[in-house]
Amino acid sequence: MESEQLLDILGNQNRRKILQLLASRPCYMSEIAERLAVGAKAVLGHLEILEKAGLVESNVDEQRRKYFHISDNLRMEVFVSPHSYEVETSTMTVTLVHEYHTSTVSATEDLKSLYCGIQEQLVRKREIMQEYQHVQSIIAELTDSYMDVIEQVTDDRVEAEILYVLMKSPLNKRELSMHLEIPEYVIEAYIEQMVLKDLIKEDINRYSIN
Amino acid sequence: MESEQLLDILGNQNRRKILQLLASRPCYMSEIAERLAVGAKAVLGHLEILEKAGLVESNVDEQRRKYFHISDNLRMEVFVSPHSYEVETSTMTVTLVHEYHTSTVSATEDLKSLYCGIQEQLVRKREIMQEYQHVQSIIAELTDSYMDVIEQVTDDRVEAEILYVLMKSPLNKRELSMHLEIPEYVIEAYIEQMVLKDLIKEDINRYSIN
Repeated sequence: MESEQLLDILGNQNRRKILQLLASRPCYMSEIAERLAVGAKAVLGHLEILEKAGLVESNVDEQRRKYFHISDNLRMEVFVSPHSYEVETSTMTVTLVHEYHTSTVSATEDLKSLYCGIQEQLVRKREIMQEYQHVQSIIAELTDSYMDVIEQVTDDRVEAEILYVLMKSPLNKRELSMHLEIPEYVIEAYIEQMVLKDLIKEDINRYSIN
Repeated sequence: MESEQLLDILGNQNRRKILQLLASRPCYMSEIAERLAVGAKAVLGHLEILEKAGLVESNVDEQRRKYFHISDNLRMEVFVSPHSYEVETSTMTVTLVHEYHTSTVSATEDLKSLYCGIQEQLVRKREIMQEYQHVQSIIAELTDSYMDVIEQVTDDRVEAEILYVLMKSPLNKRELSMHLEIPEYVIEAYIEQMVLKDLIKEDINRYSIN
């Protein structure tokens, strides 16, 4: 799923409420309308958008009543800083490889052991997130310094922008042109100068910091 | 910053474009309007929203022209699955504790070493993210099994919902009542039964899985 589309979808409070409700249990349309205190027509409109995007699916029960549930595991991360704007979306299909509840003892015992397992993993999740934030802040610091150095080694806006986009990954001329919205022939002239100045180097048509 | 507010803000494509642009460099309002091909009045409206939310700040240059930049490091994570809907937002202030560019050699050398440092951290970031996704999928699996077991040990919708919310954290009666939108006296009756059945236990007024 595309990040832009997902942000559009999540930008609506009622759609967020629908997802939140369906994350607690599958629901009929009438239940959703009642819980949200929103007209059936509006709810239907939101559900159609959510279904089209693949976030929500519907099934039919024995009485042929349609009910809705969340399709899959979806993760989105947005990171905004003075030097970066990143949105990453990933879908994780739940693959029930392991059977955790062996039911050798009793369902109540299983409930307890699953509960403990979940708590353990939640702790692990928090630890990993702290580590992640630490790395993210190191990157932010390094990027800040990198920006300062760019100011020192360039005397031109375009040169600076080229060095900036190359920080994230090596790019060819066309990609540079598209990223910076500058014609390719202009990029070419800059690139030539910057290679001469030993700022960047070429490797199979791609340019990276030297 | 509140997650709901942030999702409302990011739900607008032009505001996302403004953030993306400011993440590449600070800009004057006129630059933003030109780049987005959107009227100055509309851009001003978006900038006001972004400033109010603390995402964007403005400064005045020597010619007293106002320019805008992104205030801080902001991270948001959205996780939607058949059994959970979570949105987490965190602000990370960039604390430039270390001085990475020592400039002992030359600015060009610094550029190179900062570049390498950033690449290293980006690899580390990807590794941590994979680990995170792994834990996230284990949690999803365990939650699925937990839901199955709930079906086995309860014969009542409310009981099931109580066991479900207690999976995430221990709660007191009032919190349970608020989470489930069920009056406190009804919760009380259920809780009593469930303690008797050894499904849950009390600990300083809070209930958790036994």
